[in-house]
Amino acid sequence: MKKVALFGAGRIGRIHAANLAAMPGIELTAVSDPMAANAAALAQEHGARVDSIEAIFADKSIDAVVIGSPTTTHSDLITRAAQAGKHIFCEKPVDLSAERAQACAAVVAQNGVACMIGFQRRFDPTFNEAKTRLDRGDIGNPEMLVITSRDPGAPPVEYIQQSGGIFRDMLIHDFDVFRWILCGDGDKAAWLSATGSCLTDPAIGQAGDFDCTAVTIKTVKGRLCQINTTRRAAYGYDQRFEVIGSKGMLQCGNHKPSEVTQATAQGTSHDNPEAFFLQRYAAAYRLEIEHFFTVLQKGGTFRTTVQDGVDAQVLADAAAKSAATNQIITFN
Amino acid sequence: MKKVALFGAGRIGRIHAANLAAMPGIELTAVSDPMAANAAALAQEHGARVDSIEAIFADKSIDAVVIGSPTTTHSDLITRAAQAGKHIFCEKPVDLSAERAQACAAVVAQNGVACMIGFQRRFDPTFNEAKTRLDRGDIGNPEMLVITSRDPGAPPVEYIQQSGGIFRDMLIHDFDVFRWILCGDGDKAAWLSATGSCLTDPAIGQAGDFDCTAVTIKTVKGRLCQINTTRRAAYGYDQRFEVIGSKGMLQCGNHKPSEVTQATAQGTSHDNPEAFFLQRYAAAYRLEIEHFFTVLQKGGTFRTTVQDGVDAQVLADAAAKSAATNQIITFN
Amino acid sequence: MKKVALFGAGRIGRIHAANLAAMPGIELTAVSDPMAANAAALAQEHGARVDSIEAIFADKSIDAVVIGSPTTTHSDLITRAAQAGKHIFCEKPVDLSAERAQACAAVVAQNGVACMIGFQRRFDPTFNEAKTRLDRGDIGNPEMLVITSRDPGAPPVEYIQQSGGIFRDMLIHDFDVFRWILCGDGDKAAWLSATGSCLTDPAIGQAGDFDCTAVTIKTVKGRLCQINTTRRAAYGYDQRFEVIGSKGMLQCGNHKPSEVTQATAQGTSHDNPEAFFLQRYAAAYRLEIEHFFTVLQKGGTFRTTVQDGVDAQVLADAAAKSAATNQIITFN
Amino acid sequence: MKKVALFGAGRIGRIHAANLAAMPGIELTAVSDPMAANAAALAQEHGARVDSIEAIFADKSIDAVVIGSPTTTHSDLITRAAQAGKHIFCEKPVDLSAERAQACAAVVAQNGVACMIGFQRRFDPTFNEAKTRLDRGDIGNPEMLVITSRDPGAPPVEYIQQSGGIFRDMLIHDFDVFRWILCGDGDKAAWLSATGSCLTDPAIGQAGDFDCTAVTIKTVKGRLCQINTTRRAAYGYDQRFEVIGSKGMLQCGNHKPSEVTQATAQGTSHDNPEAFFLQRYAAAYRLEIEHFFTVLQKGGTFRTTVQDGVDAQVLADAAAKSAATNQIITFN
Repeated sequence: MKKVALFGAGRIGRIHAANLAAMPGIELTAVSDPMAANAAALAQEHGARVDSIEAIFADKSIDAVVIGSPTTTHSDLITRAAQAGKHIFCEKPVDLSAERAQACAAVVAQNGVACMIGFQRRFDPTFNEAKTRLDRGDIGNPEMLVITSRDPGAPPVEYIQQSGGIFRDMLIHDFDVFRWILCGDGDKAAWLSATGSCLTDPAIGQAGDFDCTAVTIKTVKGRLCQINTTRRAAYGYDQRFEVIGSKGMLQCGNHKPSEVTQATAQGTSHDNPEAFFLQRYAAAYRLEIEHFFTVLQKGGTFRTTVQDGVDAQVLADAAAKSAATNQIITFN
Repeated sequence: MKKVALFGAGRIGRIHAANLAAMPGIELTAVSDPMAANAAALAQEHGARVDSIEAIFADKSIDAVVIGSPTTTHSDLITRAAQAGKHIFCEKPVDLSAERAQACAAVVAQNGVACMIGFQRRFDPTFNEAKTRLDRGDIGNPEMLVITSRDPGAPPVEYIQQSGGIFRDMLIHDFDVFRWILCGDGDKAAWLSATGSCLTDPAIGQAGDFDCTAVTIKTVKGRLCQINTTRRAAYGYDQRFEVIGSKGMLQCGNHKPSEVTQATAQGTSHDNPEAFFLQRYAAAYRLEIEHFFTVLQKGGTFRTTVQDGVDAQVLADAAAKSAATNQIITFN
Repeated sequence: MKKVALFGAGRIGRIHAANLAAMPGIELTAVSDPMAANAAALAQEHGARVDSIEAIFADKSIDAVVIGSPTTTHSDLITRAAQAGKHIFCEKPVDLSAERAQACAAVVAQNGVACMIGFQRRFDPTFNEAKTRLDRGDIGNPEMLVITSRDPGAPPVEYIQQSGGIFRDMLIHDFDVFRWILCGDGDKAAWLSATGSCLTDPAIGQAGDFDCTAVTIKTVKGRLCQINTTRRAAYGYDQRFEVIGSKGMLQCGNHKPSEVTQATAQGTSHDNPEAFFLQRYAAAYRLEIEHFFTVLQKGGTFRTTVQDGVDAQVLADAAAKSAATNQIITFN
Repeated sequence: MKKVALFGAGRIGRIHAANLAAMPGIELTAVSDPMAANAAALAQEHGARVDSIEAIFADKSIDAVVIGSPTTTHSDLITRAAQAGKHIFCEKPVDLSAERAQACAAVVAQNGVACMIGFQRRFDPTFNEAKTRLDRGDIGNPEMLVITSRDPGAPPVEYIQQSGGIFRDMLIHDFDVFRWILCGDGDKAAWLSATGSCLTDPAIGQAGDFDCTAVTIKTVKGRLCQINTTRRAAYGYDQRFEVIGSKGMLQCGNHKPSEVTQATAQGTSHDNPEAFFLQRYAAAYRLEIEHFFTVLQKGGTFRTTVQDGVDAQVLADAAAKSAATNQIITFN
């Protein structure tokens, strides 16, 4: 039986707690959150105790921690967990600074603990099926990738102000998808161009951020990736990518709540995509945490390591710089 | 906390047990199955005891029973459970004989227990969404229904020999869908024509059964329903229906394991339907058992009562008779 | 250069005239229609003369006639054309009476002329592609056929009164599709059940007809066919079929005016089917008349002969009788 | 009756000739092509004469010319036609040099003739339907555009060497689509980034060209456009775009040869896109030439003027420069 502590009893923390509860051999032991009421409610629901950060790290019986607290706490908690010898599952991003993220990776390595970053899209059944087919050679050698990543609506401006900007907050997932799909053979980004606009809400612009972005990346091998993003897709959460290879294309479509088609004089319609990431990636959240504990228990390699977190952050930083300076960024 | 006993530790019993385990306020107390090893394994997995039928019915602390044992045991277990004052969730069918099914309904009524029959298709997210829209008037008054119900492959001939025949074993679900969709306003079957063939496996014909069938039902109000069925759809489990109303049509498509589309020189393809009923109706099995306990705890009406089981059985009997005699059946 | 006369300058006549005009080596010489103004307008548009039926049959230079006049004139014009030695392209049906249709076939045979019946669906690019693949063995041996044949709206009651009823007027095409798809290897109908209702317009019922029908046919080899039909599909002209074989299924979908998908907060929608048969079968009308002249000029076999017209009529008669008498019809 | 001369009796010239032949009120009078045999064959087929460029421009009876000859001849023929007072329909591009294209526009204006450039995509039924809905406000204000433009295979290297490069040869259409969809309210390109690779055939790289490209454009109003292009899509001719607006999205899908879906144990597949531009844009070629003569005869504004040709060329030049210099281009 693995004993696990959870940092963060908010939206994403509750999802992890529910998924942990359904896993045989895993026991959620402690929950920590500065919002005491949230921590208490979640702990009670799952028969865990509420505890402080210090106490959790001092508890020798705890094997692993799941970090679902705010982004600003991630690097500190990773560092302390590594030093306490706990294995770590941490939500993306490692840190808004690529330098601090790199430092986390170093601490993790020094302490010999396992650290997985929650890039849940790699566990989405549709995206993962495409990756499996790509690796199997179904479409030959990958050449181009088009990522469509659109949120149904923007978060509050207060969130945006602390988010590190759209490239670090929202596109971090897309940069990871780029690396996962186009760089599986050791290829990497060589050239990046990014730009953005503020079209959906002036308050976002006043907060110094974009709400629509367009990024292009070229790899060392010449593969091309385009990412298009908006904070507001009126029709819902639009999460697709298509990868073109020498022998064909793989397209990942959206998931729909039902497969009903309705035909009337006004037209033939089907459901919009599932509402937002908690619906679309429900299976992915479950599968990623299962993967974490499966690797801990049976050995193997994490599908997303702390280094993947660092590498995505480097691309996010480059995109932010490209958009801010109107210049193409090249990587060594 | 509701205490529940489960009859049957086979394929469907294990599904019910897992769904019960995830429901707060429900405790699986006892498991009964003549296959002692199956019963023991399932009981251990969920912290329940193995027990005899008699002991379960004698245990006053048990509130409800879930019947997932073979069809031949259903009417007996329903009768005894009703007499013991237990609420009942029973897999379809109530009984292969409409008369015995009717007798069960009478016993249930006399003993004042609740009895729900597991027509899980009514809980499938896609089918249920169509029903919701139909009831909301999105397509006006229903006029026609086309049901496509195709299995990926036939069960063993030994099973078929004891199944009561394809109309009672397989189309029982489709007869329930017919009643659910076209008879929501009190309409009912007035006219039925059925025929069948044995095209996929001669052994099925030698067992006295069909493997492909075509049924037409006309209601008192003149609505038309066609059902097409085969035991062998080479491309998978094909479960669709479309209902045509005065203002439009609702089509229920299949569910797919992923939303990947693959385009190569050989064509553009997507996933076949989910493999079989355990995949396609996974959500439905969970939702129906939740519905059962929600109604028990909070009151309300079951979506599928024992009378629904009886009424579907009457249609199955009529279809079998029509196909055997080459005659149209009319109902009073 | 083949010289052609056209009977009928109405809707379908004008389509044939335009298609003839675009064919090299074909000259529309004469047009005949009791509505003199229609005949004159169409003749002028294509540089043809207006002429009487008698004069056309007497004109030795005319090689072939295209009959697009009302159904009631078909058998008479076929008979006279055959006797005059003209090759014949005639719109469906040959005649509302299967006996008179059979007599036409005899006259055609006696006079050694070619006679093709305009079952244009056999030339629709989608339906024809399905037939090609079926014949190629892509889905193995055909076992079941489900035909969806729904009009967007009913014709005037005056038309219905003279139409011979929905089975002869509308389902005649579907009976031909049944024969084309399921009977390609010499199989034929052995068993037929039909019923109908009047749900969309009471005036249709008062005229003695149905507006919704459900037909089942079983062949000698045990193949099953179901046809569902309505005179009113609120969402447009719905023309589909799916054929299930031992190795798979072929589905024929509708054609849409454009491939635009629109996604808004209200849902994701695409175009309804093309409006009605003149749009959906525009290519089919062109291809069937090209086929007629190609066979005349280069030899070969018509895809739809006068005997096909007779055989479809026999099924239409049987369906009308089955629905009128509430009895299953069996064929020798 | 408008008299028309055609320059170019090759592939595209033959398409224009056939479309002209089907238009009432238009007479193809003369055909000119240095390949005498081609000119003779096409002229004979349509009852036209073969003639020299000089004689055509000297023939006062000729109202309009259709230029379907090689790109290198366009600006010269436009200039001479304008000076001869002929109205002009010219295939894209005006000229591979934006300066020479601008000079053509000036000559056209000075001589008061009409000049339409054949950007046929604006006449494609699907693309045009999307434009109509966008202009009608169905998705609110346009914000982003993603263009997918992929050829099934590359042209011969000899062609590529004289093509002006992929941005001028292939993406010229996409730059026009960008202007058509995102700049309908007077908006225009402000910022452009382009890059390319040679991944499908080294000979293309040796010829100094790319075979895969990625372009991003930002407009003055901040709208974003991404274009992804390859010379080799193994699954066929892939021509789609999607435009995202404040209230929704319009997606333009590919056209398929048939609407057959085939489901077997290997998967469920449908047709690949229509093979190449002659199939996909067959309707568009017909509709654009009809538009040209409709405007000539009834007045109105061309949907694509010589200035549209110039403006697309400016974007192509900028993209070529951006990709060659690894720099972002900004426009005044």
